[in-house]
Amino acid sequence: MQIKELGELGLIKKLANQFTVSHPRVIKGIGDDTSVTIQDETKYLLCTTDTLIEDIHFSLKYSASYNLGKKAVSISLSDIAAMGGTPAFLLTSIALPPTTSTDFISLLYRGIKERADEFGVALIGGNTSSAPDKIVINTTMLGEVPKDQVIFRKGASVGDRVYVTGCLGDSGLGLKIWKEKGDRIITDPFLKDAMLEHIDPLPRVKEGRIIAEKRLATSMIDVSDGLISDLRHIAEESMVGAKVWLKSIPLSTALKRWILDHPEDIMLSLAGGEDYELLFTASMNNANQIDVLAKELGMQITQIGEIVPKEFAITVLDENGAVFPLAREGFEHFKQL
Amino acid sequence: MQIKELGELGLIKKLANQFTVSHPRVIKGIGDDTSVTIQDETKYLLCTTDTLIEDIHFSLKYSASYNLGKKAVSISLSDIAAMGGTPAFLLTSIALPPTTSTDFISLLYRGIKERADEFGVALIGGNTSSAPDKIVINTTMLGEVPKDQVIFRKGASVGDRVYVTGCLGDSGLGLKIWKEKGDRIITDPFLKDAMLEHIDPLPRVKEGRIIAEKRLATSMIDVSDGLISDLRHIAEESMVGAKVWLKSIPLSTALKRWILDHPEDIMLSLAGGEDYELLFTASMNNANQIDVLAKELGMQITQIGEIVPKEFAITVLDENGAVFPLAREGFEHFKQL
Repeated sequence: MQIKELGELGLIKKLANQFTVSHPRVIKGIGDDTSVTIQDETKYLLCTTDTLIEDIHFSLKYSASYNLGKKAVSISLSDIAAMGGTPAFLLTSIALPPTTSTDFISLLYRGIKERADEFGVALIGGNTSSAPDKIVINTTMLGEVPKDQVIFRKGASVGDRVYVTGCLGDSGLGLKIWKEKGDRIITDPFLKDAMLEHIDPLPRVKEGRIIAEKRLATSMIDVSDGLISDLRHIAEESMVGAKVWLKSIPLSTALKRWILDHPEDIMLSLAGGEDYELLFTASMNNANQIDVLAKELGMQITQIGEIVPKEFAITVLDENGAVFPLAREGFEHFKQL
Repeated sequence: MQIKELGELGLIKKLANQFTVSHPRVIKGIGDDTSVTIQDETKYLLCTTDTLIEDIHFSLKYSASYNLGKKAVSISLSDIAAMGGTPAFLLTSIALPPTTSTDFISLLYRGIKERADEFGVALIGGNTSSAPDKIVINTTMLGEVPKDQVIFRKGASVGDRVYVTGCLGDSGLGLKIWKEKGDRIITDPFLKDAMLEHIDPLPRVKEGRIIAEKRLATSMIDVSDGLISDLRHIAEESMVGAKVWLKSIPLSTALKRWILDHPEDIMLSLAGGEDYELLFTASMNNANQIDVLAKELGMQITQIGEIVPKEFAITVLDENGAVFPLAREGFEHFKQL
């Protein structure tokens, strides 16, 4: 059997079962946004590692090296945010074809440094090596979280509300525009925002910390694969189901206007991926506090559904309460090809 | 300018200067075998990340997936060993072409797991994604070391002795045989050992810990680029020079026999790379203790030279005390291509 038949989720599941570790200091191994290990008496150490490969995870046609550097860091920051953690240290491992210009790498590292600085993260390790043809960027981020504040994917209970920060689907829309525009210059300011959202997403570190500190969430994940796919991670780890109201999903002006002409692209909000927003569940008792806090701090947090028993699986309901068909559920790294 | 003109060392130096961090918890950032940050009152956290790319860092012609998995872990273990640390946790990020067989990845992970288990390391994170054509394996290893035992590249003083564990050059010889053998079957048991040394090096974690615990070394590094290249890292960080006696370099039976017919291949011991032995410097006062300890614990530790003032740079002396010319000094990842 080849990997493309099994798919990444199948593969990870197979591996996770194989690598169940029983180590006194491991709180969570494979299967969450970051690993969680005991650092000292009060804190957990968080660690996440991501590899970006040219023409799989990014294209130099859309993203200049500077934005690429920023995005590589943002992706790892988002994983730390999803645990409610504070990012601290970054290590990079970058492989470049020998014909890469030194300007390219200077700008790449400038993007890395600026995004790291912006979030108070110190770059403490970096190695470079040669790549045969495609650029490979690996980021490893270390962070920490007080032991009583960490938020896992597991923990959602039936009756919990499902929330998401920001808007969904803009990154997917942006990518679509990048792909389709050819030599055209895009002048629509809303579409330009969506295009920027794709190449330079801003991770929700502050929001993640507040949600963790106030103990508002029962589970959390960042939306990297797409809403439904990531909600499924929460559902599987928490052994529950979930329903999502299509009309509640927060959309940007760009996407709202876009789907007037392209109604099928509502799927971008469900499965576009790379939103890097936080998806979390919270007890109904915290609903009021979440609303008040969001207003006070100027954070966009929207309830989009609720947790239901496992046997109901994950469903999206349209305005009439009918089940909305999910044609393509997420950004599955292998099957997509 | 392209990277191949600047070379990896030039690139890293340029970047390291750019990323000098002043963070209260960072003890050592870019420029050593691992990052060193404060974990708690008594310990430092060590973190290292390495990327292996098919046909740059390994070839499936020589290395089966099982050995590849083991080697990927060994490389990171060796970095932790070079700081005198104890490895603890491993995260992997692996990208595979979609046509990769699931057997291949099962064996790859088996190799990863077995090598990790062997050294008491827990695999706590793993993600997989698609690669366009070449396999990419990233390993991130976390370890720790008591604060008063960490060994940096800097710290060597004039008059210190230069030591190395094990033998040098076998991995380079092994690679040469793998490349040249074609369809021939190698029956010479010594050459077979060298070939195995290349695809399955054993990191010197135990040795590193003992050297650190007994505070025997003033500086340490693992020999990954090649003896002279790695000695240069120590010399630069310590602001000293070094002389190495060619005849003192420990060689395996395989390499000793090989150079009878191929005398120029003595260079493999100086610049072959991927030995994953520990290269360290120690005060003359510790010489006796090192000899006794090595005998007691059955560790091969050989004095190969001594630290001299910076202005003498790095020289290798032959049997007659003449300077041995260094044609190719190490495995420089970019210039090599």
